Amino acid sequence: MEIVFTFNIKENQEVALKEAFPAAVFQFNKKALDAEVETAQILVTYGTDLDEEIIHRAKKLKWIMVASAGVEMMPLETIAARGILVTNARGIHKIPMAESVLAHILALKRAIIPMYLSQQKSEWQPKHRLSELKGSTALILGPGAIGSEIGRLLQAFGVQTIGCNRSGVERPSMDETIVFNNLLDKLPEADFVISVLPSTEDTKLLIRAEHYEAMKETAVFMNFGRGDLLNESELIKALENEVIGHAVLDVFQVEPLPADSPFWSLTNCTVSPHASSYSGKYVERCLEIFHENLGKWMNEDSEFVNEVNLQQGY
Amino acid sequence: MEIVFTFNIKENQEVALKEAFPAAVFQFNKKALDAEVETAQILVTYGTDLDEEIIHRAKKLKWIMVASAGVEMMPLETIAARGILVTNARGIHKIPMAESVLAHILALKRAIIPMYLSQQKSEWQPKHRLSELKGSTALILGPGAIGSEIGRLLQAFGVQTIGCNRSGVERPSMDETIVFNNLLDKLPEADFVISVLPSTEDTKLLIRAEHYEAMKETAVFMNFGRGDLLNESELIKALENEVIGHAVLDVFQVEPLPADSPFWSLTNCTVSPHASSYSGKYVERCLEIFHENLGKWMNEDSEFVNEVNLQQGY
Repeated sequence: MEIVFTFNIKENQEVALKEAFPAAVFQFNKKALDAEVETAQILVTYGTDLDEEIIHRAKKLKWIMVASAGVEMMPLETIAARGILVTNARGIHKIPMAESVLAHILALKRAIIPMYLSQQKSEWQPKHRLSELKGSTALILGPGAIGSEIGRLLQAFGVQTIGCNRSGVERPSMDETIVFNNLLDKLPEADFVISVLPSTEDTKLLIRAEHYEAMKETAVFMNFGRGDLLNESELIKALENEVIGHAVLDVFQVEPLPADSPFWSLTNCTVSPHASSYSGKYVERCLEIFHENLGKWMNEDSEFVNEVNLQQGY
Repeated sequence: MEIVFTFNIKENQEVALKEAFPAAVFQFNKKALDAEVETAQILVTYGTDLDEEIIHRAKKLKWIMVASAGVEMMPLETIAARGILVTNARGIHKIPMAESVLAHILALKRAIIPMYLSQQKSEWQPKHRLSELKGSTALILGPGAIGSEIGRLLQAFGVQTIGCNRSGVERPSMDETIVFNNLLDKLPEADFVISVLPSTEDTKLLIRAEHYEAMKETAVFMNFGRGDLLNESELIKALENEVIGHAVLDVFQVEPLPADSPFWSLTNCTVSPHASSYSGKYVERCLEIFHENLGKWMNEDSEFVNEVNLQQGY
């Protein structure tokens, strides 16, 4: 049993794996083009280093553990044709992403940036228009695992939560649930409009110019799902014309965001460089999932945690 | 019944008071030296505009509503000798202060400032060492109304809370409670040490150099109570020598903080200019208390909300 990692983990994590699975041969910190991949049965990767050629060369490959949630960059058809198992790390972003969303919201309400700028000038300026989060209303597009965690935290702050999804099925920590078709009617109520939607046929360009028009002038729009939720030039226009109050964007149509994008310099826009899911615990959590699945693999169990449906792509 | 406000409120707030209490004569937006104060029975003030002379001139004064929590600046003995009722606005700082504390904590964990600085350079930099709040431990000095609200929010984020007070009496939202005498032993466990203590004989200089030594090197120390909790040069030394990770200071020995204070330029120190209790809802909340108390006054009720004990001074 040869297991190849195409990324680096800590020494104590390597030791723990070797001790737990003495029958396996581990190769850590390899590249996808290294010879070890050709003989590996199990590949642990961030997923972005795989292409069709590598899959062809990895003739013994039976299982790919992707230390990421998205698998859209991988050659899924080729992998499916070979009958290779794919598991991923979905779900581990919930905590850091929800904390990031709350961090941005509270930073805006409690004037963290203006206060920082005053400090740089040694300027005692207590009048930065601080306001309270309590009593606000948040509309959460995509109240799944991440959206519900955001809702749970917002409710603790006394925020009213409205979930919005395709089905209208009620999800935890939402005071109310609406369907996509009713979004436009509900937007005028929201102080925060937060998307954590994945990219699907239903969500592409879901948010258009008319949606910003329907929001409050003070509304904060946050996109933490996928960049193709909206047309960026429409959002830029809405921000330039102060149709809405502020945007916090973690995802973009093109990433890294090009240096000439107006988002960088708009004072009512926060660019979070696809960073919200980062956490010092990321690899640790991926390894927990891998550990559990490797145990199952060794026992010829077939009920894997986070098996990816290669037809659906998630 | 003549009621004088020595500050400005919104027109709709004026109208609401007049409609609720048609028998009263309201004078809004006056100065403490204005003639109207001489005939007023009720004075609504921030408290800092009162001195002995004004109390002497206000011969008909029966009740002072102070739209603030502290009354230490007022001529309390003279007021007590005249038998004037004093009520204040204590408790209304709970929500904005707890939100500010969480805003600063999350801003540090989720790299809000480094991300802002990268944005100013149009720099896509996702590797800002973001970490998770979940799983941290917070030690809260002074788990009263404000401290418990901070604890409640921290617990929602999965933070372990330790309350520390003089009596050891357990307070809400604390997983554990310790007394001041055990503080030094407990400090090594805390990722966040948050003081919301008032200034009393027991709390003055409670935090000394040895306390920073006892904290984790990564600990964040937050003073949101009173500036005399500590010796500022000891804290400056601890920050300069990176004995602790970061400080967030809302209160200081001298306010406004002098322009030559090292706190301004220490990169591991956040200066919050006594701003954490600010909120657009401040006056609204003060008026709610005043409204309730004025109703009681009219009904000759004597159980007032937030009556100040003039001997104790709070």
